[in-house]
Amino acid sequence: MPAVNKAPPRGFPDMEFEARLERAQRFMSAKGVDAILLTTAANIAYFSGFQTQFWQSPTRPWFLILPGSGKPCAVIPEIGAACMARGWVEDIRTWSSPHPTDDGVSLLASTIEECTRTSGRIGLPMGAETYLRMPLTDLDRLKSKLPNFALIDATDIVRDLRIVKSQLEIEKIAHVCTMVSDAFADAPMLFAAGQTDIEAFRAFKMECLRRGVDDVSYLVGGAGQGGYGDIISPPSGRPLRLGDVLILDTGCVYDGYFCDFDRNFAIGHASEQSRCAYDTVYRATEAGLAVARPGNTCADMFNAMQKVLEAGGALGNAVGRLGHGLGSELTEPPSHAPFDKTVLQPGMVITLEPGMEFAPGRHMVHEENIVIREGAPEILTRRAAPELPVIG
Amino acid sequence: MPAVNKAPPRGFPDMEFEARLERAQRFMSAKGVDAILLTTAANIAYFSGFQTQFWQSPTRPWFLILPGSGKPCAVIPEIGAACMARGWVEDIRTWSSPHPTDDGVSLLASTIEECTRTSGRIGLPMGAETYLRMPLTDLDRLKSKLPNFALIDATDIVRDLRIVKSQLEIEKIAHVCTMVSDAFADAPMLFAAGQTDIEAFRAFKMECLRRGVDDVSYLVGGAGQGGYGDIISPPSGRPLRLGDVLILDTGCVYDGYFCDFDRNFAIGHASEQSRCAYDTVYRATEAGLAVARPGNTCADMFNAMQKVLEAGGALGNAVGRLGHGLGSELTEPPSHAPFDKTVLQPGMVITLEPGMEFAPGRHMVHEENIVIREGAPEILTRRAAPELPVIG
Repeated sequence: MPAVNKAPPRGFPDMEFEARLERAQRFMSAKGVDAILLTTAANIAYFSGFQTQFWQSPTRPWFLILPGSGKPCAVIPEIGAACMARGWVEDIRTWSSPHPTDDGVSLLASTIEECTRTSGRIGLPMGAETYLRMPLTDLDRLKSKLPNFALIDATDIVRDLRIVKSQLEIEKIAHVCTMVSDAFADAPMLFAAGQTDIEAFRAFKMECLRRGVDDVSYLVGGAGQGGYGDIISPPSGRPLRLGDVLILDTGCVYDGYFCDFDRNFAIGHASEQSRCAYDTVYRATEAGLAVARPGNTCADMFNAMQKVLEAGGALGNAVGRLGHGLGSELTEPPSHAPFDKTVLQPGMVITLEPGMEFAPGRHMVHEENIVIREGAPEILTRRAAPELPVIG
Repeated sequence: MPAVNKAPPRGFPDMEFEARLERAQRFMSAKGVDAILLTTAANIAYFSGFQTQFWQSPTRPWFLILPGSGKPCAVIPEIGAACMARGWVEDIRTWSSPHPTDDGVSLLASTIEECTRTSGRIGLPMGAETYLRMPLTDLDRLKSKLPNFALIDATDIVRDLRIVKSQLEIEKIAHVCTMVSDAFADAPMLFAAGQTDIEAFRAFKMECLRRGVDDVSYLVGGAGQGGYGDIISPPSGRPLRLGDVLILDTGCVYDGYFCDFDRNFAIGHASEQSRCAYDTVYRATEAGLAVARPGNTCADMFNAMQKVLEAGGALGNAVGRLGHGLGSELTEPPSHAPFDKTVLQPGMVITLEPGMEFAPGRHMVHEENIVIREGAPEILTRRAAPELPVIG
């Protein structure tokens, strides 16, 4: 398995975290933010290197504070101390969690006071695509312990930092895209009529693991005669039939970074209408690639792809956008949508995901992962076949 | 693979959802709650059957409203309509998401008003082990659109409902416990000195999939000479060595339900100290099993296990508890901890997880999954070997 041998090293050198923090502190200074409080897996990992699947346990809250100067400070349950200590953060304060009356709130409040000293503006991601991963009642307790502090929205600061990837981040995403592209190339050996979609999904998961991904964190899709009904459902147990179009859409992970792309296959034979729909979304992706240049906006990306979809007879698209950012989360800002005027910059990793309902209840969706470069983008996935592949 | 053939059917009959809702509405009526608003994957699945890995995309919020009478109402992004419609909920209202200025908030507010009509107390899980999966700024918008409504904490209502499992839920958990027990039985063929922990984890993931789990959602662990340093880290790439103790702790999933247990293996040979530590946590588990009876409390469970650990020389335990609830999340209430006076009831599915630091930096943790029954509990996992297994 040569792909495994070419795997980029795990983790990041200290320099990477230093650069992230320096940019954050520059943004914070410009916006008058004294400290930023982070509570979610992706944001905490970004500034600390802390990586664990233990986030799947909702029991305990975890906190990272970015002060205006100096390194981040972790306020975390004792169970995570050894894992956090392997990362970049040195100041790690723990409490025995779960705790029935004070699950880290007092320790967090006193640490925030210590990190900020005099003042009072604590940034917290509170806007679009964010959530607070701690109990709401504990947020109220925290506020009452910090009466001289104001919580202000830090969504933009964190978004603007994470939206442009470093070369080391890009290499991890590229690596997982390559392994999954290889797995999709094996589709003729993995999928066949008569097999249930559950079996097909399982075969694909094992193939991705065999090729070196850490986890097949996300695998959804569907199959139906001439097209599928939706693309976020788990497999149903329905057997694949001749004439089905099968889609698998996957977010596999390598060292904390996702790919997110799909592939379509016709089982046995493909109808003219399915071929046409495939051709339309393929050409829409080409149109997106043509405008994926620094200086253009996500709205430009949407418009270029949407024009092709409409000309191809799209009845609609329930996804609400035609692609998005990608990194340590399956989906990240920006959105290729009419409302998103984000200007593309070199280093942004995005998906192109043109999709449409081409007949009532039948959809066709394409997806590729690219990185914006000076000039033409770099395609991280192996480009889908220009015609609907027939297998089985 | 006979285990796959015995798989319980996917999903639940309508009767299951009807029973859940009826109990919820009885609790709501008793507590004067007019509707409950749910935003997280596990809570929404519990009352709707909505299952998708799409929750890994943090972009869009999802809402389910439980009214005081009548069936739940889903207020969700359009992309999820087809998937939700396969479940039990009939009233599905959608908007095109992501939306730059009103990402479902107006639709949610008007739906809440419609569901409650006259009044005013909206339950929201806000306490321990909960979080709100929507942007905080959108919660503020929602409040301002509903000036006559009070948000009150509904943590207890949801917790008390979900903490006791139905027989159909138990069968799903039992099934995944059986498949993973089978995979652990293959440890001598999967793990060996010289192999990196990354390779060992990958081999185990593939074996679990081969045996029929849907996903190896959670796999953490570690290995070290005579004992491991922590149990929530991802594998590091370190090769397994003779004299290592290896632990794998896994939450595999079948049809939306988790197992959560671990197994320990000595590579090549085991020190007397490691064997002793293993014996101690094994006996602590036995002590937990002996008090796992209806009417006893989680604190009783803790005390019974802790007594054995202390007599066995435990230096400490960073986990903060000795087991927990289990179901559609990797960890759920209750906690086997001194502060948790939850009374055990038939149908509760819990882990027994006695663990200790037995020498500086070296830990030993056991874990089994059981269901509380009248009389002795039913052990869902195949009981770990009474002596530290030596493999490789």
